[in-house]
Amino acid sequence: MTALRLTPLAASLPSTVPFVGPETQERSLGRPFRARLGANESLFGPSPHAIAAMAKAATEVWMYGDPELFELKAALAAHHACRPDHIVVGEGIDGLLGYLTRLMIAPGDKVVTSLGAYPTFPFHVAGFGGEIIRVPYKGDHEDPEALVACARAHRPKLVYLANPDNPMGSHHAGPVIEAMVAALPPESLLILDEAYIDLAPPGTAPMIAPDDPRVIRFRTFSKGYGMAGLRVGYAICAPDLARAFDKIRNHFGMGRIAQAGALAALADQDWLAKVRAGVAEGRDRLAAIARANGATALPSATNFVTMDLGRDGDFARATLRELTGLGVFVRMPGVAPLDRCLRVSVGDKAALDIFEDCLPRALQAAR
Amino acid sequence: MTALRLTPLAASLPSTVPFVGPETQERSLGRPFRARLGANESLFGPSPHAIAAMAKAATEVWMYGDPELFELKAALAAHHACRPDHIVVGEGIDGLLGYLTRLMIAPGDKVVTSLGAYPTFPFHVAGFGGEIIRVPYKGDHEDPEALVACARAHRPKLVYLANPDNPMGSHHAGPVIEAMVAALPPESLLILDEAYIDLAPPGTAPMIAPDDPRVIRFRTFSKGYGMAGLRVGYAICAPDLARAFDKIRNHFGMGRIAQAGALAALADQDWLAKVRAGVAEGRDRLAAIARANGATALPSATNFVTMDLGRDGDFARATLRELTGLGVFVRMPGVAPLDRCLRVSVGDKAALDIFEDCLPRALQAAR
Repeated sequence: MTALRLTPLAASLPSTVPFVGPETQERSLGRPFRARLGANESLFGPSPHAIAAMAKAATEVWMYGDPELFELKAALAAHHACRPDHIVVGEGIDGLLGYLTRLMIAPGDKVVTSLGAYPTFPFHVAGFGGEIIRVPYKGDHEDPEALVACARAHRPKLVYLANPDNPMGSHHAGPVIEAMVAALPPESLLILDEAYIDLAPPGTAPMIAPDDPRVIRFRTFSKGYGMAGLRVGYAICAPDLARAFDKIRNHFGMGRIAQAGALAALADQDWLAKVRAGVAEGRDRLAAIARANGATALPSATNFVTMDLGRDGDFARATLRELTGLGVFVRMPGVAPLDRCLRVSVGDKAALDIFEDCLPRALQAAR
Repeated sequence: MTALRLTPLAASLPSTVPFVGPETQERSLGRPFRARLGANESLFGPSPHAIAAMAKAATEVWMYGDPELFELKAALAAHHACRPDHIVVGEGIDGLLGYLTRLMIAPGDKVVTSLGAYPTFPFHVAGFGGEIIRVPYKGDHEDPEALVACARAHRPKLVYLANPDNPMGSHHAGPVIEAMVAALPPESLLILDEAYIDLAPPGTAPMIAPDDPRVIRFRTFSKGYGMAGLRVGYAICAPDLARAFDKIRNHFGMGRIAQAGALAALADQDWLAKVRAGVAEGRDRLAAIARANGATALPSATNFVTMDLGRDGDFARATLRELTGLGVFVRMPGVAPLDRCLRVSVGDKAALDIFEDCLPRALQAAR
């Protein structure tokens, strides 16, 4: 250990992992999960056209991908009625959150987020020495008014809000977000994480001009488009901020298969519509399963359903442990009072049948 | 612009791109290149088994990849007769260089590299505020003795050496590197970039114990394995350093197709042997083409041939421009005196036929 000469900041960081993957759990269980419903992946999979495009790109993978992502950025710009210079593409929203934090946060700089919200953002902030200020949820929603009040008090450089929210599945209507943007102090850039927006009700996306310097929006091909394992996220923001990513990003980091798959997926909006319908149906079924077991499904604008088990975090954790032992992978919020819930991704019929069979047994055992 | 609140370090960085991609050049030319020989990609492509594995993984890409890369790390450990905890896998060597620099370099910390060596390392060092000290090449080789002398004088935290070297294609025998490791000051970690090692003569890889805290070795699936567009690199180093990457890396950054492709490619060492034979043949042909045009092919331990055109940088740049205009993508070293050369990747017969046809015309026009 004596030879390790990390920076003082790096030395101070824990080697923790933000999420333990299901494969790690499978290795300790000694068998694969029967139902993979914990990572909000899309069991409907990607568009068949995207699968075909990725298979074709595999034969061309001896070539680096275009470091400027010209075609993909042009297609995204057309899709969002903005210009390519409003778009940044990166290695998932996780990767882009890392780059943005690096651009904006030096040791001691402040950020504001919600207590219990997506943990990869604080992981990056801590990694660059930033100070994280957390605001509680209001019921099962992130609380825009409290986030604004906190930002006005602390003048952070970044404020994070996911809409729809993970892990609760709740959402705010677009105008609520617009009001929040208008009320933030001028020092604060809003990170609007819209990973689940493709699955949310109409009107969830706020009207924000791509040139608006107060907001950076994040989108992904991991959820609605069903390509979590491809690692393609993108941001929409003002061109000067978009350009700043070029100062630090891994310029050849987006591979050839990733670019081809994303391009084909974006072109197949019919597939996305089918996924949306399938997700709505799956949410209804998960809500019915929750009801049948005396739990309450929270309203969801995502591809998962958060179920209030009506007791405390210990009970929910015990239930989750039992489900894991029965071969069902689900997750749950990490902090009270959100941790009274389980978070179950929408699955196909086979996976939901298994969940329906196992949930009552798990609850029984946890009691 | 007024709203951008970058860190002072980020604000000071240029938005330059380390390499302009061939696609960017094709867009300004208005047509695709006829021969793509500039990025040291493998025109032999990846193993057919790897292509099949990637196509299969495309159907499973709705799942995140294993964030611990268990199977790939186990296979790499078996291949290198080390343990999985000696291995770090990341988004190409470029991505891993970024992580390592972030772990080790705070503003003002020093690094030593060679003047004209791989530019992505200084890109990352500048990005974290490090001070870059450059040592000239000795002839067409990086100069281990001068690098050691410079390190002894300046006590840098990192010393970079590529063996074989890019852009010159030269190499040192393993014992030269071993002597360099023994002579470095205790403050300095050697980054040994072995991107091209799969194509080098036997004896090029030094004997270094994976536990040796003085060295981190980088390898890649981009060159010999022919998967530049997949973005999979890895490091071999002491476990405490390997573990430190977990403090900051994009834990879900390695996708499902990338992991599957790398695993299958590693398993097909017969394919690598075929590529090695094809590369050797291609180097011979490129040397003959150089000779026939009054140029000198430098000895190469890589999948490219660096050709000394026998005049100055302006002449080489003019020749490169002409080749570009003729639809041939090649690159050249950026600094004198290395910039008297062109760097031409080994291609298949069709691509080398085009290069053979175009080189005399380009030289003629440049004269």
